Amino acid sequence: MTAKPRIEIEYCTQCRWLLRAAWLAQELLTTFETEIGEVALIPGTGGVFEVRHGNTVLWSRKAEGRFPEAKELKQRVRDEIVPGKSLGHSDR
Amino acid sequence: MTAKPRIEIEYCTQCRWLLRAAWLAQELLTTFETEIGEVALIPGTGGVFEVRHGNTVLWSRKAEGRFPEAKELKQRVRDEIVPGKSLGHSDR
Repeated sequence: MTAKPRIEIEYCTQCRWLLRAAWLAQELLTTFETEIGEVALIPGTGGVFEVRHGNTVLWSRKAEGRFPEAKELKQRVRDEIVPGKSLGHSDR
Repeated sequence: MTAKPRIEIEYCTQCRWLLRAAWLAQELLTTFETEIGEVALIPGTGGVFEVRHGNTVLWSRKAEGRFPEAKELKQRVRDEIVPGKSLGHSDR
């Protein structure tokens, strides 16, 4: 298994959320190209939209009541896996 | 771990192949919405572009000398994980 962190994005297929899940996966894989080992897209149901690192839920649509902007999701992923990393513009 | 199959797509970041890897991931997750447990996007280097199911390489750009069309990749994934499934138009 790669030693680099695995990020999971579970999305609701009934709600047709694959496209935004895949979009955020590409945003994370672009920003953290060398730091992330993989991003797994996981089909789910019942309104789920969660971004996780292991047991840590980085974003839960149900808890937050909305989807993340790319910037805030990247900040949470950065804080979780590469705390020192600057995100440039999107960090402000 | 989900019991459904995990598909891996490893792509070369130096070659900027994230977009086509993410595209194929979405194609597979749409066609096999209920049969696939996850599709993992895995950044790699050195010209790699491989689609795998466990130890089975379903497509290797190096071996095939090119990228897969969505149709042929879906046929190989179908043959591997859901042999009986019809793919409709794209199966011909």
